[in-house]
Amino acid sequence: MRNKQFIPAHRVLMGPGPSDVPVRVLHAMARPTIGHLDPQFIELMDRIKALLQFGFQTKNELTLPVSAPGSAGMETCFVNLLEPGDKVIICVNGVFGKRMVENAVRLGAIPVIVDDEWGAPVSLAKVEAALSDNPDAVVLAFVHAETSTGVLSDAQALCELAAKYDCLTIVDAVTSFGGVELDVDAWGIDAIYSGTQKCLSAAPGISPVSFNERAVKKIQQRKVPVQSWFLDLNLVMGYWGGNAKRAYHHTAPINALYGLHESLLMLEEEGLQDAWERHAFHHEALKAGLGALGLSFTVDASCRTPQLNSIRVPDGIDEAAVRAFVLSRFSLEIGAGLGASAGKVWRIGLMGQSACKGNVVLCLEALDSALQQQGFSHSAGAGVAAAELVYSE
Amino acid sequence: MRNKQFIPAHRVLMGPGPSDVPVRVLHAMARPTIGHLDPQFIELMDRIKALLQFGFQTKNELTLPVSAPGSAGMETCFVNLLEPGDKVIICVNGVFGKRMVENAVRLGAIPVIVDDEWGAPVSLAKVEAALSDNPDAVVLAFVHAETSTGVLSDAQALCELAAKYDCLTIVDAVTSFGGVELDVDAWGIDAIYSGTQKCLSAAPGISPVSFNERAVKKIQQRKVPVQSWFLDLNLVMGYWGGNAKRAYHHTAPINALYGLHESLLMLEEEGLQDAWERHAFHHEALKAGLGALGLSFTVDASCRTPQLNSIRVPDGIDEAAVRAFVLSRFSLEIGAGLGASAGKVWRIGLMGQSACKGNVVLCLEALDSALQQQGFSHSAGAGVAAAELVYSE
Repeated sequence: MRNKQFIPAHRVLMGPGPSDVPVRVLHAMARPTIGHLDPQFIELMDRIKALLQFGFQTKNELTLPVSAPGSAGMETCFVNLLEPGDKVIICVNGVFGKRMVENAVRLGAIPVIVDDEWGAPVSLAKVEAALSDNPDAVVLAFVHAETSTGVLSDAQALCELAAKYDCLTIVDAVTSFGGVELDVDAWGIDAIYSGTQKCLSAAPGISPVSFNERAVKKIQQRKVPVQSWFLDLNLVMGYWGGNAKRAYHHTAPINALYGLHESLLMLEEEGLQDAWERHAFHHEALKAGLGALGLSFTVDASCRTPQLNSIRVPDGIDEAAVRAFVLSRFSLEIGAGLGASAGKVWRIGLMGQSACKGNVVLCLEALDSALQQQGFSHSAGAGVAAAELVYSE
Repeated sequence: MRNKQFIPAHRVLMGPGPSDVPVRVLHAMARPTIGHLDPQFIELMDRIKALLQFGFQTKNELTLPVSAPGSAGMETCFVNLLEPGDKVIICVNGVFGKRMVENAVRLGAIPVIVDDEWGAPVSLAKVEAALSDNPDAVVLAFVHAETSTGVLSDAQALCELAAKYDCLTIVDAVTSFGGVELDVDAWGIDAIYSGTQKCLSAAPGISPVSFNERAVKKIQQRKVPVQSWFLDLNLVMGYWGGNAKRAYHHTAPINALYGLHESLLMLEEEGLQDAWERHAFHHEALKAGLGALGLSFTVDASCRTPQLNSIRVPDGIDEAAVRAFVLSRFSLEIGAGLGASAGKVWRIGLMGQSACKGNVVLCLEALDSALQQQGFSHSAGAGVAAAELVYSE
């Protein structure tokens, strides 16, 4: 069994990531591998950096793709910006806020946790209280769009609060980048990380990050070395830094970066504003359809992020059976709940190239069939009809 | 400039990695992305694990590809096996031994350094003395094939010494895996890491690792948590561990793993022994050709690793100009010296698919031309002729 080629089925990816990777991006990854110090590759690095600056809306010199998934991007921000004994305020309203706390504890920082309910946005009042109570805190960290719940927090307001109390910010933009408004420079975000497999629709495995001058200064003035050699930005900068002579640090994941570059080109061709509007538009259609099927969102309409939709599993419905059914019948992947919401919700992604009419209609059809199978009382066909109404407006 | 597709030139890769990635592997990476919890992907994980066990020659249950380049594989071994205050004997005979020391220092371990000249193998006598002098050492770490020099150390004998003094071993097999004999179980290697972009001829970005029961026990009995959340094997095991229920840890680099799987299939089809012999054979041809051109190796014949050839730059020759010439004229990449040997050597890789007659002949032709250009006194055409003689034997 082990010695045969692996030919995956074609899936429609509407889980919490990866999203559908377009053929353009897949083909880009299949281009011939060149060396990581080849002059052509250095040129590609410059192009990727410029495109990431465009996507993040920043002029930050230190903008680059970390050679590992989003979790490593998170760790890059934490281990570089924080030193043992540093106090950090961390907003926890889902799985990824909790992961931030893990990162802080492991590096010896002192986390002050601002807890909010899962599915609620980060409370500005609680954060201001924490900032006021902890004048020695050096960093405020929060998740912009929580992938575990689909809630969007007010990143701009949180950054304003941090600035008022002279704190640096670390922002998780894994799910928000390319899907909703994100303006690193205008909002005053000091350090940010994202992923490739969400609204960029590239393959998983790379984490774009960006750091402004204030963050770089903090990194350069560290008293103890960064605990990770692989993620130490003082070293990574030697390779990605932009001086003519690139110093070898580690071997970059060449073909994965071909794919990232292609996905960034697609984002630039579409334009940021149009990409955000596309995500919002298909979210409206999906929302109308789900409502018509009798399904409801777990997150209040005022703070939903359009690209990740948490849907309550109705009483009496076997949620795992629904996912298995839509996967086997429609080759459609939707996500399970994560952490506290496991078994209670489905997470339906409309990320990147997955945010399109074909996917919305397929998803509504598939859920309709799955619910019929389990005898759920709803009006068959109503979901797609309601979505079509939004599309025809 | 930034908004155009990136179409790399076709290079012939004979540097210290990446090596030539065959079309089969490139195409595998372009297959449709599926989810990291998809039943099909779980099956692929099992297949990759089985193929890595085959390549490492091990039955180790904890055998998996780390979702980041070889440097992260090194860090995975160090931060999991060592705790602050642990004493570790590290053999330094090149760049990667030095990097091991960096890893040990940053995690708070106490390194005892066994120094050998760059280009010399690790001295068994010195290691035994260090083991005897440091009965409290818990780990012996060394590089099997040093990519910075092309020297091969006696991994089997080093592991025997470690066992005699009750030390665990961490072995860097980044360049050796698939290129020379490597037998994890028979040699008693406790922890090992490699890379995809050397003798496996997959794209860079993934680091296969393997840990035996003794190593796993040490990891499970840690007193303090692993400093890296991303590389913590206690967590990674939940995803790669082999129990029916795979717990989400981070999003695996799906398409890069398609490529790794394909490259492992190719290794299995060829067979380990045949792959090692192929590397040795083309090394003989290259060696004959280089000798006929009047070029010499920096490493003694008794301890050269065939897949990485360090060649002395003759007096009066501009080494960078030679590399630039062969790149622009022949689209051939050869490597510069690294660290102490920068400017003094070329590193010519014969790794994975790059270990073939076409590459050897092209390289000899290209060097011949480059040296002629710089007025180096040698017998034009002699290099290829000498290699052909080896091939016709």
